[in-house]
Amino acid sequence: MAEAITTVVKIGGNVIDDPVRLDSFLNDFAKIAGRKILVHGGGKEASRLSRALGIEPNMVGGRRVTDRETLDVVTMVYAGLINKRIVAKLQALACDAVGLTGADGNSIPASIRPKEPVDYGFVGDIADASVNTSFITSMLDAGRTPVFCAICHDREGTLLNCNADSVASAVATGLSAKIPVRLVYCFEKPGVMADVNDPGSVISLVTPSTYPELKEKGIVAAGMLPKLENALRSSSGGVKEVRICDASALLTGGGTTVRKD
Amino acid sequence: MAEAITTVVKIGGNVIDDPVRLDSFLNDFAKIAGRKILVHGGGKEASRLSRALGIEPNMVGGRRVTDRETLDVVTMVYAGLINKRIVAKLQALACDAVGLTGADGNSIPASIRPKEPVDYGFVGDIADASVNTSFITSMLDAGRTPVFCAICHDREGTLLNCNADSVASAVATGLSAKIPVRLVYCFEKPGVMADVNDPGSVISLVTPSTYPELKEKGIVAAGMLPKLENALRSSSGGVKEVRICDASALLTGGGTTVRKD
Repeated sequence: MAEAITTVVKIGGNVIDDPVRLDSFLNDFAKIAGRKILVHGGGKEASRLSRALGIEPNMVGGRRVTDRETLDVVTMVYAGLINKRIVAKLQALACDAVGLTGADGNSIPASIRPKEPVDYGFVGDIADASVNTSFITSMLDAGRTPVFCAICHDREGTLLNCNADSVASAVATGLSAKIPVRLVYCFEKPGVMADVNDPGSVISLVTPSTYPELKEKGIVAAGMLPKLENALRSSSGGVKEVRICDASALLTGGGTTVRKD
Repeated sequence: MAEAITTVVKIGGNVIDDPVRLDSFLNDFAKIAGRKILVHGGGKEASRLSRALGIEPNMVGGRRVTDRETLDVVTMVYAGLINKRIVAKLQALACDAVGLTGADGNSIPASIRPKEPVDYGFVGDIADASVNTSFITSMLDAGRTPVFCAICHDREGTLLNCNADSVASAVATGLSAKIPVRLVYCFEKPGVMADVNDPGSVISLVTPSTYPELKEKGIVAAGMLPKLENALRSSSGGVKEVRICDASALLTGGGTTVRKD
């Protein structure tokens, strides 16, 4: 008998910022049959807290430059506030959630990003092969649902701020070497769109051979590029299905499918 | 063969506030042989963050009145900043730490404290019998070290701010129904002292029959009363050894032993 598929879902920051949509999404997530993992982004709470503490957020190329004070802020907001709110809500929905950073159980070791060409500070990158699949599958085997924020560690005692899309991709790809996995990127848009102002322009399929044209012609906007690259990497790396869709379409299907040619 | 003992250690907020002492304590904690659990207090970071955000901390009888904004603050500081810093450091010491709130894995359900005589807001109390010992022992069996902060949940989606001494006591007492447990309260003093200004005045033994006199004569100061009552409750509830000592004496012994008559 084929092993049932494990679902890895990434939920984006814009949905997290909207309590009604987040509740609705978590209700749907809790209904997913079988083994599942949630990876969540950050939303605007970290920038709000930063500003309240007199630290002006510094974004370069869409990524947060993370000095020591900012690392404290994102650790508080992502690993504390957002992660534990989600866990408490999922528990109330009878989903046995366990909130984790990549430091917990050494589940996702990361490496600090090289200081050139941009010094992002305490920002980390993850190698798919370094994901601690034993830890994660042991949680799944026990009927638990890991809920990851994008804070990881360097194994030497330092936390690192990582990208949640990349965490989801690394977890899905790492696990796919052992078990069948599908990956769903949920956010506030209906999928990858040919025209960002036209919800009807969703591109239903992206593959390694169609992606270069989308990129070269500027059809895919800046923010979507790393998401699509993560999706393509996961697909090539062994993840059976990758989908990019509106958070409200988690259970109903639709959006953009990313797969190998 | 008798089952090896599991050690539950509580580390107090004053030690957490001192990075050098905290590092030294974590080095010692990592060396404890056998299965172990860490429960940590909060320290002054939550009050600092509160004030920075314009929320004046409101303490009644040594307990923090926890309105919704304050719940967010303590969740950020205890479950995020402090918990994950400790986990990353223990991981670097080859201790396979997993940082948890009582919401994670539904490990420690709590009940919101009655609104009379004082409305503490989102403050919770824990029944020893409600501790999810299956979850905790499954982590221990897998060679992991749970690291708990004192944020719990009501199983209905709401986080609750609990007392870390009480969390440590409830975890130790709950587990002691299944496995042999010892409990060590580590803080910044050498033990329960007859004279708070004289480190040589440590009371080496407290039992249910000697406690009332210490309390009535005012020998034990206000802050120590709930700690001692938690210790006595754990001892009566089945915990094999309870000790209250300086954090630096975790491995060397000494301090105050609390046991049944």
